[in-house]
Amino acid sequence: EEKPHVLFVPGQSLNPNGARRFYEVMRGRRSVRAFNPHKQPSQEVIEDCIRAAGTAPSGAHTEPWTFCVIVDSEIKQTVRQIVEQEEYINYSQRMHAQWVTDLRPLQTTSTKPYLSDAPYLILIFKQTHGLTANGRKKLHYYNEISTSIAAGMLLCALQAAGLCSLVTTPLNCGPALRRLLDRPANEKLLILLAVGYAAEDCKVPDLERKSLEDIMVKY
Amino acid sequence: EEKPHVLFVPGQSLNPNGARRFYEVMRGRRSVRAFNPHKQPSQEVIEDCIRAAGTAPSGAHTEPWTFCVIVDSEIKQTVRQIVEQEEYINYSQRMHAQWVTDLRPLQTTSTKPYLSDAPYLILIFKQTHGLTANGRKKLHYYNEISTSIAAGMLLCALQAAGLCSLVTTPLNCGPALRRLLDRPANEKLLILLAVGYAAEDCKVPDLERKSLEDIMVKY
Ligand SMILES: Cc1cc2nc3c(=O)[nH]c(=O)nc-3n(C[C@H](O)[C@H](O)[C@H](O)COP(=O)(O)O)c2cc1C
Ligand SMILES: Cc1cc2nc3c(=O)[nH]c(=O)nc-3n(C[C@H](O)[C@H](O)[C@H](O)COP(=O)(O)O)c2cc1C
Repeated sequence: EEKPHVLFVPGQSLNPNGARRFYEVMRGRRSVRAFNPHKQPSQEVIEDCIRAAGTAPSGAHTEPWTFCVIVDSEIKQTVRQIVEQEEYINYSQRMHAQWVTDLRPLQTTSTKPYLSDAPYLILIFKQTHGLTANGRKKLHYYNEISTSIAAGMLLCALQAAGLCSLVTTPLNCGPALRRLLDRPANEKLLILLAVGYAAEDCKVPDLERKSLEDIMVKY
Repeated sequence: EEKPHVLFVPGQSLNPNGARRFYEVMRGRRSVRAFNPHKQPSQEVIEDCIRAAGTAPSGAHTEPWTFCVIVDSEIKQTVRQIVEQEEYINYSQRMHAQWVTDLRPLQTTSTKPYLSDAPYLILIFKQTHGLTANGRKKLHYYNEISTSIAAGMLLCALQAAGLCSLVTTPLNCGPALRRLLDRPANEKLLILLAVGYAAEDCKVPDLERKSLEDIMVKY
């Protein structure tokens, strides 16, 4: 069962100055919570972004991810209802006081118009296991890390395409959203991503990012 | 404690055809397990890649990551010893038979020359909590997902810069590596990344990736 090995051929880069160029593009990314409902990115662009996410590495090459792309406005509306209902309970009961305090700078609430305004919702599921060709259960090692890495690559792709996004992790909504989309039980919702163009008057919290010195240590 | 909100200003993209361009670059990424020990990427490039990773989104803007960059060859050698010792036990005792079988296509073993050959090792730690300005413990919501997303963005940056990498998750090595690098107890090793240029004769397993249809579902 060993795979044949082939000579590694380096692919394309963004050189010259690829790292700097990449950083200059990515530093412009912000979480956007108000989308323009009338400006529709093309399906081809969304597909290329998901293709890019699908090039991510994964533990033992299990590729343990499913990207569910919702364009249908009724389904988006149902997603919004499910999430707002749960988030109302989250904010008022499930999240402890400190958590609610920690979120205050972002001014987020349980009302989520972006879930119906954003032209696309991408629900990213991690697969806890898969099936081999002969039907036996195949464990997906490190499926959460691998799928989150793929999500990171998807965010980069969306930014490269000039699109905006919002990563959310709606507490307690996974099972209901999984059933809504008719996904199998081995798939667990990891991230609900809203994607589109920012509304004209979109505002974002005036956050600062840590400096390089705060996140990097040299040895 | 609400942050002032400011008008969102879209940043740069890679348009025209940014999504396609990005995909064309990322599809060339492969996990490389043989590095050229004599070809040293510049520190500036590595720093720009980590800057890019630091633009990642994070739960409640906690930025729960530390990137430890090792260039010193003695420290790399010690990392290699720690990992090889544990991986020997992993392969022979800790990993169940199926896991070892699942890894056979990759032909990986407990011997890891890349840990001393790669010009850089980047150890990515997730911070399970932080401290506020007045010293109280600050929970880091979703720190594993956020740090993995940042890792995904780091991999994209390295690819954009024309560099090669290998993501590893050395089982049971976290505490010893954390102590070696003198990191605090709230930091847990998530990923050990080897970074550099591929060796001239570097071979990679002839893997296929899932097609778009296998990873995307439309609604
Ligand atoms: C979370 C994670 C853990 C991994 N752990 C290891 C590892 O411990 N050792 C290793 O050689 N490769 C490891 N890999 C690399 C995968 O084997 C590799 O990504 C996969 O075989 C696909 O190959 P590609 O990256 O060339 O596309 C890991 C990858 C991920 C995402
Ligand atoms: C794992 C994760 C979960 C998140 N969950 C939510 C969420 O449920 N609701 C929300 O409005 N933002 C959420 N965010 C977005 C963060 O609040 C945002 O990334 C952070 O405030 C930094 O702002 P920026 O993305 O504009 O740099 C999440 C981000 C991550 C990475």
